[in-house]
Amino acid sequence: MPVLLGENNYGESRVRLLRVVHQQDLNDIRDLTLAIRFEGDFEKAQSGGDNRKILPADTMKNTVYALARQYPIEAIENFCSHLTEHFLTYNAQVSRVRIEAAESAWTRISRGSRPHGFAFTRAGEERRTARMTATREEVAVRAGIEGLIALKTAKVTFKGFLRDPYTTQEEDHNRVLSTVIGAEWLYGPGDLEFSPIWHGVRQVLLETFAEHGSHSLQHALYAMGEAVLSNFDSIREIHLALPEKRYDLVELQPLGMDNPGEIFQPFDEPQEVAEATLRKG
Amino acid sequence: MPVLLGENNYGESRVRLLRVVHQQDLNDIRDLTLAIRFEGDFEKAQSGGDNRKILPADTMKNTVYALARQYPIEAIENFCSHLTEHFLTYNAQVSRVRIEAAESAWTRISRGSRPHGFAFTRAGEERRTARMTATREEVAVRAGIEGLIALKTAKVTFKGFLRDPYTTQEEDHNRVLSTVIGAEWLYGPGDLEFSPIWHGVRQVLLETFAEHGSHSLQHALYAMGEAVLSNFDSIREIHLALPEKRYDLVELQPLGMDNPGEIFQPFDEPQEVAEATLRKG
Amino acid sequence: MPVLLGENNYGESRVRLLRVVHQQDLNDIRDLTLAIRFEGDFEKAQSGGDNRKILPADTMKNTVYALARQYPIEAIENFCSHLTEHFLTYNAQVSRVRIEAAESAWTRISRGSRPHGFAFTRAGEERRTARMTATREEVAVRAGIEGLIALKTAKVTFKGFLRDPYTTQEEDHNRVLSTVIGAEWLYGPGDLEFSPIWHGVRQVLLETFAEHGSHSLQHALYAMGEAVLSNFDSIREIHLALPEKRYDLVELQPLGMDNPGEIFQPFDEPQEVAEATLRKG
Amino acid sequence: MPVLLGENNYGESRVRLLRVVHQQDLNDIRDLTLAIRFEGDFEKAQSGGDNRKILPADTMKNTVYALARQYPIEAIENFCSHLTEHFLTYNAQVSRVRIEAAESAWTRISRGSRPHGFAFTRAGEERRTARMTATREEVAVRAGIEGLIALKTAKVTFKGFLRDPYTTQEEDHNRVLSTVIGAEWLYGPGDLEFSPIWHGVRQVLLETFAEHGSHSLQHALYAMGEAVLSNFDSIREIHLALPEKRYDLVELQPLGMDNPGEIFQPFDEPQEVAEATLRKG
Repeated sequence: MPVLLGENNYGESRVRLLRVVHQQDLNDIRDLTLAIRFEGDFEKAQSGGDNRKILPADTMKNTVYALARQYPIEAIENFCSHLTEHFLTYNAQVSRVRIEAAESAWTRISRGSRPHGFAFTRAGEERRTARMTATREEVAVRAGIEGLIALKTAKVTFKGFLRDPYTTQEEDHNRVLSTVIGAEWLYGPGDLEFSPIWHGVRQVLLETFAEHGSHSLQHALYAMGEAVLSNFDSIREIHLALPEKRYDLVELQPLGMDNPGEIFQPFDEPQEVAEATLRKG
Repeated sequence: MPVLLGENNYGESRVRLLRVVHQQDLNDIRDLTLAIRFEGDFEKAQSGGDNRKILPADTMKNTVYALARQYPIEAIENFCSHLTEHFLTYNAQVSRVRIEAAESAWTRISRGSRPHGFAFTRAGEERRTARMTATREEVAVRAGIEGLIALKTAKVTFKGFLRDPYTTQEEDHNRVLSTVIGAEWLYGPGDLEFSPIWHGVRQVLLETFAEHGSHSLQHALYAMGEAVLSNFDSIREIHLALPEKRYDLVELQPLGMDNPGEIFQPFDEPQEVAEATLRKG
Repeated sequence: MPVLLGENNYGESRVRLLRVVHQQDLNDIRDLTLAIRFEGDFEKAQSGGDNRKILPADTMKNTVYALARQYPIEAIENFCSHLTEHFLTYNAQVSRVRIEAAESAWTRISRGSRPHGFAFTRAGEERRTARMTATREEVAVRAGIEGLIALKTAKVTFKGFLRDPYTTQEEDHNRVLSTVIGAEWLYGPGDLEFSPIWHGVRQVLLETFAEHGSHSLQHALYAMGEAVLSNFDSIREIHLALPEKRYDLVELQPLGMDNPGEIFQPFDEPQEVAEATLRKG
Repeated sequence: MPVLLGENNYGESRVRLLRVVHQQDLNDIRDLTLAIRFEGDFEKAQSGGDNRKILPADTMKNTVYALARQYPIEAIENFCSHLTEHFLTYNAQVSRVRIEAAESAWTRISRGSRPHGFAFTRAGEERRTARMTATREEVAVRAGIEGLIALKTAKVTFKGFLRDPYTTQEEDHNRVLSTVIGAEWLYGPGDLEFSPIWHGVRQVLLETFAEHGSHSLQHALYAMGEAVLSNFDSIREIHLALPEKRYDLVELQPLGMDNPGEIFQPFDEPQEVAEATLRKG
């Protein structure tokens, strides 16, 4: 029986680095995690153990550190470009390089209203992401947001839904809606100012989440995606995943009390999820 | 600007259940976690907030419990079939149902050599998985393994690899190879005995991991996938992901000692990964 | 052989609640997690299975929700007081109640410079904690901080330390110092404004961390604790635990580059830790 | 205001090592994680930044690797002894050393009924622990178990408990009882065979958990502790912590079905906990 090698790749994940820029009175830091994958001419390595075309994953890690040393601090999308260009230039055996980068934000400690020059606190679990897929012919640049937890206490309903014999959910007019926003969008061609756009998209997502009168998680998702596509010429499509963080109104009648939308119990499981990709027509 | 709704789905994740079968002297348990996704005619719900075709995610959860009550304990692949059939039968608005199931094993406490009738310990973090994708025309059944941590202390080399100016890795003849085996395979058509096959695949993966003289992670992966395809007629393709759990030989020379392959330090980061799909020709 | 029952307790952990205050244009939320422990006359329950003095742990959870409904939103220390008073009043069999509370902060989404009325993002993994231990004779109130990750890129040295034959660490004059600040302090008696004090302590800890010229983790810890004791009359003692988040300068010489304190690799393991309690004399 | 330095310590946590013993046909491995803490004469280091009595935490890590190289593989309690003796011998400034060790088990891959010579799978999340506290005058040796998840489907009741106005829990005669066994016991003096005792204690804990007719979590805990003290002369006291992993019977009446103890939903939160220390009289 012949075995065919299908899609395959290898690489190095979870390459972490902290960059420090020492300026006179104001140091700056960047906290990055990267993953790199090579696709290419690796059949003999896989089937026969011939490593002559295998650049060690460890070298990918070294390359991240070396290029970080050579280039100034810049948007993660630009750093990903340097990496893909380097790898494609020096590795004829590689047909496609994929880079995923995630940046964790740090906030300067403040003293009165003055931000501190070299001391920081970690800003949370939210991460700015970039994903670049590059061949010698074309490059796709995606940016995104991971782990942005949002919650609203008004403008949420869920009613008029389909019922079957196993449906017990009640219509629910005064709910808490909370989710972990996961977004990734694809840029069109051209030179872009990635960082201002990223902050703009984040703001549009949050404002739409807050202001939209949501009839369902799917409804909120669509409004958020549509708002991003409408406001940013440079974005061609956006993928959103919204896992709900569920908050149930606690039943206080057995304890002799009412509960007019005040006391909620969070549940991590089970978890409703909505996912969709929206594109420009 | 018109917005097009692309791929989209919604559903319920992390639905957990424990089934208990009470028999005379021997209770039995099954520990399952499921995720369900619907694809279908949801455009009006997404863009306009019209919920008339939205079966609540909460009902999906109820359906899991209801069907678990109605059917005897069986292989998770069979339970997934009952669920997809139920959802497609009663939901005309749904074009495709995806079910992911994961089973955690429990081991009977033993007393002497006698297994206990109703007391168990959790067998570890390894999980048996199934993934079923069903439309009204066709069904794809996949099974898999998650979280199976394996390690070997011989028959591992990595040498003769490509070098560039950033390569510092040394050739390494006496290594520890450890990975978290992640496998998923696609079954061909026909009635199958899913549980014996699953245990057989697991055994072939582990034996091949153990016995293969691995020149690289990719090389080990290919051998493992090929062994499964060669041994199981009912399996058409297999996808393997092998993240390496790195163990570095501790440098003891500065402490005045040698280290002939005896003392290793594990590192979680960074992490080499190899991934591939193998198919029957 | 007689068996003596020593220290023992039982209770309910991880009781989570979200409180929502609906005001005209500005909703407010509080996100709490509590643990409750009872000590008391439980020997017969333990040794004989007599449950007549066992209030179910489930009732502790209900009581948290019931009291949250009855009292306005207030500092977590005050909410802990209501709980301990309730439990000691209605449970003669209980001699000591311990409550641990943790609050996660949420930040209002902003629109321009205007904070939003009912939409929030999670502020990070840092948590404000309180721990109250109450008998019918006395009450000890502690407050604290968990998970506050801080980092500085200057004013850090580690030199002149003890060496033995296994010491390989080099003196290190230009380091990054990062830690997860864990602090808990004991209040003296009297009515206190817990929330302003908490924010004040947090600020003093961060400013001292930032400004202190640290010769070691222990040295930084002592300065931070001393600054808190010096600035807050109401605090009698403070316990600090500082696990170091290690950042190693990447060796770039093998790659043909220098690294003047710019490119660091973080390591989660192993981890240096310093811990101490400081008291007023 | 004078500040007094109270209890304080420093050290290295999460020192991980894998030991490999290469024998002719049968390699053996041990997977350990250690934490080390020094108490002693460190006031000047803390308050003044004088590091002359500070052995770097990094040296503690090196010492673990060096001593692992020098001694044969043995019970973790014995390895802890070598470490405390080494540190107290060479560090006059240290008055007390604390070592915590945890061992993760690996199982040989089997081929037919034959265990493999050099390939293993990780046996789960359960860990064997040791904790040694040593001064120049005395040594306390504790051993323990972490993360041993157990579950039983019979011989569980909870009834006749105390009720107050907030009690809603129903008496419950046919429950699932599941917990994560956490145990730590203190050895008396004398040369002991630590490994056989550890396996014996684990077996007694599991058998008692299984066979005891438990009226409550506390009741089960006491029986388990008493059984250990009764069966092992060398053990003077035992501390047990049993967090309940809750399984609630799913309400199937709204779905038109009964549920005679068959379908359960697990909940991670909130979580009942019982804790106690039992001593020999």
